[in-house]
Amino acid sequence: MNFNDKYGAYLNEFNAVLTEFCDSIDCRPDVLRDSLKYSLELGGKRIRPVLCLATADLLGLERRKVLKFALAIELIHTYSLIHDDLPEMDNDDFRRGKPSNHKVFGVGNAVLAGDGLLNTAYSILLKECRKGTEYISAAEFVCDCAGIYGMIAGQSADLLHENDNSFNEPTLNFIYENKTGKLLTAPVVVPAILSGGRCFAELKSFGKDLGALFQITDDILDIEGEFSTLGKSIGKDKTEGKYTSVALYGLDGAKLRADVLAERCSAILEGIDGDREFLIKLVQFVRTRNK
Amino acid sequence: MNFNDKYGAYLNEFNAVLTEFCDSIDCRPDVLRDSLKYSLELGGKRIRPVLCLATADLLGLERRKVLKFALAIELIHTYSLIHDDLPEMDNDDFRRGKPSNHKVFGVGNAVLAGDGLLNTAYSILLKECRKGTEYISAAEFVCDCAGIYGMIAGQSADLLHENDNSFNEPTLNFIYENKTGKLLTAPVVVPAILSGGRCFAELKSFGKDLGALFQITDDILDIEGEFSTLGKSIGKDKTEGKYTSVALYGLDGAKLRADVLAERCSAILEGIDGDREFLIKLVQFVRTRNK
Repeated sequence: MNFNDKYGAYLNEFNAVLTEFCDSIDCRPDVLRDSLKYSLELGGKRIRPVLCLATADLLGLERRKVLKFALAIELIHTYSLIHDDLPEMDNDDFRRGKPSNHKVFGVGNAVLAGDGLLNTAYSILLKECRKGTEYISAAEFVCDCAGIYGMIAGQSADLLHENDNSFNEPTLNFIYENKTGKLLTAPVVVPAILSGGRCFAELKSFGKDLGALFQITDDILDIEGEFSTLGKSIGKDKTEGKYTSVALYGLDGAKLRADVLAERCSAILEGIDGDREFLIKLVQFVRTRNK
Repeated sequence: MNFNDKYGAYLNEFNAVLTEFCDSIDCRPDVLRDSLKYSLELGGKRIRPVLCLATADLLGLERRKVLKFALAIELIHTYSLIHDDLPEMDNDDFRRGKPSNHKVFGVGNAVLAGDGLLNTAYSILLKECRKGTEYISAAEFVCDCAGIYGMIAGQSADLLHENDNSFNEPTLNFIYENKTGKLLTAPVVVPAILSGGRCFAELKSFGKDLGALFQITDDILDIEGEFSTLGKSIGKDKTEGKYTSVALYGLDGAKLRADVLAERCSAILEGIDGDREFLIKLVQFVRTRNK
């Protein structure tokens, strides 16, 4: 099976779980249910769930064991986008080619939709905890990645350093490692934890590097991407004085860095026994993506 | 020991845990740590933790078993206040006599502080899950109370029905049961679950009624309270066309309803074996509070 077909197969497997979950949401009032489903059903690459399923395959772990973790991580990712798009945060009017949650439902409802998705992610993870202590460890890892020593720290630093002329490489690395890296690390480390800790350290490093790669290609796409493909506003970073790898290294410097990170990701995968082909191609996909 | 002394003793016991927790927060950047601690350290009645400890005593459960649940619930309560005070939600500039989180740190940071507290509550609850399945059940109960079928549903309905001339009693009940009631139910039901389900149904009803009582006295205080005692803006409900029990029943009608609810709470407690005295007085405290 080629890369695109395999990506599609993982996507279908995850989307079935997501659709079942979305269909099960019947909270009141309607605006709460609709705003939750709106953002969950916007589509997107679903790269975190795909990473989670592919890493389970790499480690020889049954994929069904990680499906609910993949769902919880995607809910956390979706909540973070809703809150990040808010006017006083990143102020994005578009997400995946459609109006952002707050443009459709208003800021108040968007705050609540984000809160609701985060809380629901933990509802899913707590249910998994009944299956054994390794599931509790995996849930705790996701929680750490999402929290105040993880993604939220990265978002806070990102907000702090807008229009900051004194930015430097350590700050940039802190933001990329936490804001983007932690929630890309969770889906590859969860299967490691559920496999008794197999390749834990390697996959943790892989997630961190993939996160930096993902964020740098995001910065590059903000310059070179097209709205019609990307589905979100272009050129915002520069207009808003945003602290990015392109601002720090220049466009060519950022591309070079992306290449180095992609190579490091592949090298880590080469050191793991198993069918690594799909994940190695996924790294290239992230490096060369246009959306 | 009289009521005030006993309340103070519970408060001290909880505050020791809270202080230890606040001292342990060392996330970066500073603004994230400071904004989390600012709202946690604003004080307040801490009625949810006190309820949790007192209910453990009522059921003969060791209080140490519920302390981390009390902490997690207080974090969830604090996050909900931060998000609820935001300009596009309830738009409150003051909380507990001090500027609201977003007035000090800005809206973006306040959103993140709320997200951070919610996530940290689950970090605490997940750690409890290792202690056994009844702890997982208790954590799941808290999660349900806080989530899209609980508090968040209530807040969403509250936001929806601002300036709504067609409001009615069922809607008001839905808001009070979910927005306020669910997070007052959690601290009394957690000890029941950790006691093997003892008095589960009674304490769940008690929490629901106490929640309605608490919200109605809140509505009354919005008319009759004083800023200096209450620490938050007065008369806001009417100015903002807010849907409250006073708007529905009139001031005297709301007071009568509060009396009925207080009696119902006491009657439930009378049916439970154990030292009920403190909780019965706590109900009166909620009924007659001036802050």
